[in-house]
Amino acid sequence: MTTFRDRLAARWRAADSLLCVGLDPDPARFPPHLRSGEDTIFGFCRDIVDATADLVCAFKPQIAYFAAARAETQLERLIDHIHRAHPQVPVILDFKRGDIGATAELYAREAFERYQADAVTLSPYMGRDSIEPFLAHADRGAFLLCRTSNPGGDDLQMVDSGGVPLYQRVAQLAAGAWNTSGQLGLVVGATYPAELAAVRQLVGDLSLLVPGIGAQGGDIEASVKAGRSADGTGMVINSSRAILYAGSGSDFADKARAVAVATRDAINRHRQG
Amino acid sequence: MTTFRDRLAARWRAADSLLCVGLDPDPARFPPHLRSGEDTIFGFCRDIVDATADLVCAFKPQIAYFAAARAETQLERLIDHIHRAHPQVPVILDFKRGDIGATAELYAREAFERYQADAVTLSPYMGRDSIEPFLAHADRGAFLLCRTSNPGGDDLQMVDSGGVPLYQRVAQLAAGAWNTSGQLGLVVGATYPAELAAVRQLVGDLSLLVPGIGAQGGDIEASVKAGRSADGTGMVINSSRAILYAGSGSDFADKARAVAVATRDAINRHRQG
Repeated sequence: MTTFRDRLAARWRAADSLLCVGLDPDPARFPPHLRSGEDTIFGFCRDIVDATADLVCAFKPQIAYFAAARAETQLERLIDHIHRAHPQVPVILDFKRGDIGATAELYAREAFERYQADAVTLSPYMGRDSIEPFLAHADRGAFLLCRTSNPGGDDLQMVDSGGVPLYQRVAQLAAGAWNTSGQLGLVVGATYPAELAAVRQLVGDLSLLVPGIGAQGGDIEASVKAGRSADGTGMVINSSRAILYAGSGSDFADKARAVAVATRDAINRHRQG
Repeated sequence: MTTFRDRLAARWRAADSLLCVGLDPDPARFPPHLRSGEDTIFGFCRDIVDATADLVCAFKPQIAYFAAARAETQLERLIDHIHRAHPQVPVILDFKRGDIGATAELYAREAFERYQADAVTLSPYMGRDSIEPFLAHADRGAFLLCRTSNPGGDDLQMVDSGGVPLYQRVAQLAAGAWNTSGQLGLVVGATYPAELAAVRQLVGDLSLLVPGIGAQGGDIEASVKAGRSADGTGMVINSSRAILYAGSGSDFADKARAVAVATRDAINRHRQG
């Protein structure tokens, strides 16, 4: 058995990339030739995957985009395609679940058995026993929501919790008491580099899933310098729309690849220092 | 348009019941004659629904039980059946989502358009803008996780947050700043009646969804006395397994009905006082 942590670390090295492409398929933004027909969500995502797989350390499908479209079967096919065509690239299923033990076991089966994801995102609000059923799948991983990049992220995450903001308490739990098996990571938005740095300070070389980054060098520089681990890895830096919808014509996959190359390279310029 | 709050209040009165039957279908616990064949999850739940609908103020399907079994279509059929056969009974889709704006909009479409749920459960961790896309559906409701009944519920919810435990801060937000349209309620477990009473004290007559109750009169008495609103309603008291699996033979629906009657009556004994 290889652990998720080992597979991700191997991919960071082999691809020389911290970039993750987020698969948030919005049919209204597909190129015209993909807006009708069967299984267009699968088709669009497969083309993006095949055009960018050598550039990424992970793919991150967001399940709401499939569920709202009654496209669970297309999500199954997409992840199966990634595993077959690009077996070195881990798949992080972004579903942010959190529930009590018996129900959490079913969500873990949904993610790891039905969809065959390598890792998931989870909400920490219900506590340790809502996380453990996922860790029972020893070769898989989980990223806990810590500091999110949306404006409302402040409402609870910045509340003073015995001297530290709540998000730092989550970071301490995920790096310490809850992480008995090394399967946990954290979701920390790129919006606040100072907080990304504070989390990195607290968690050693824990893996951080970092959404909220654009193709702009400035944000990338600040985020990478704040979030990188000692060896210049430790981050899964997600970009979704800037890559998926870089083009709007039949060359959308080429355009996506070009933006993915530029983003990977912009990240790599700041990994060491 | 009638609001979710109005529909729930009307149902409390018409059924003279605060009982909610939770639909957590576990095929391994179905009676033998329902363990094989097509759409057995739908069939089991439909029989429970039809045997108990006159006794309840709501039904609460838990989506993980359907998703882990690739049974989304059966969940669609089940909720459609409830709306057609028992149109006065609201359906609360227990899915505990929480995500940023664009993704939250899709989850709201999943719950309210695809599944036609009257209300959902949500996680508050990502803050106000993760809740608002659900409130844009003006005739629907949302119950935010506040104090959950699992042991790990303490890990974050009991953390001191500027002088009050975090769950009380969530209660204040859900009853105040976040609840501009009266669509919000809270999830508060029955395990800790003192905390249920503290929440009721903070939130006026806000609706509380209360899981974690058994068929035991003691727990019910303490919970109802702690959580009831001034007029003896205000609670959606959920029981799942004690009702669903009251029987294990071909008479399972009759057995479920008998436990539902006893639970409803035990609740009603303590609503006034």
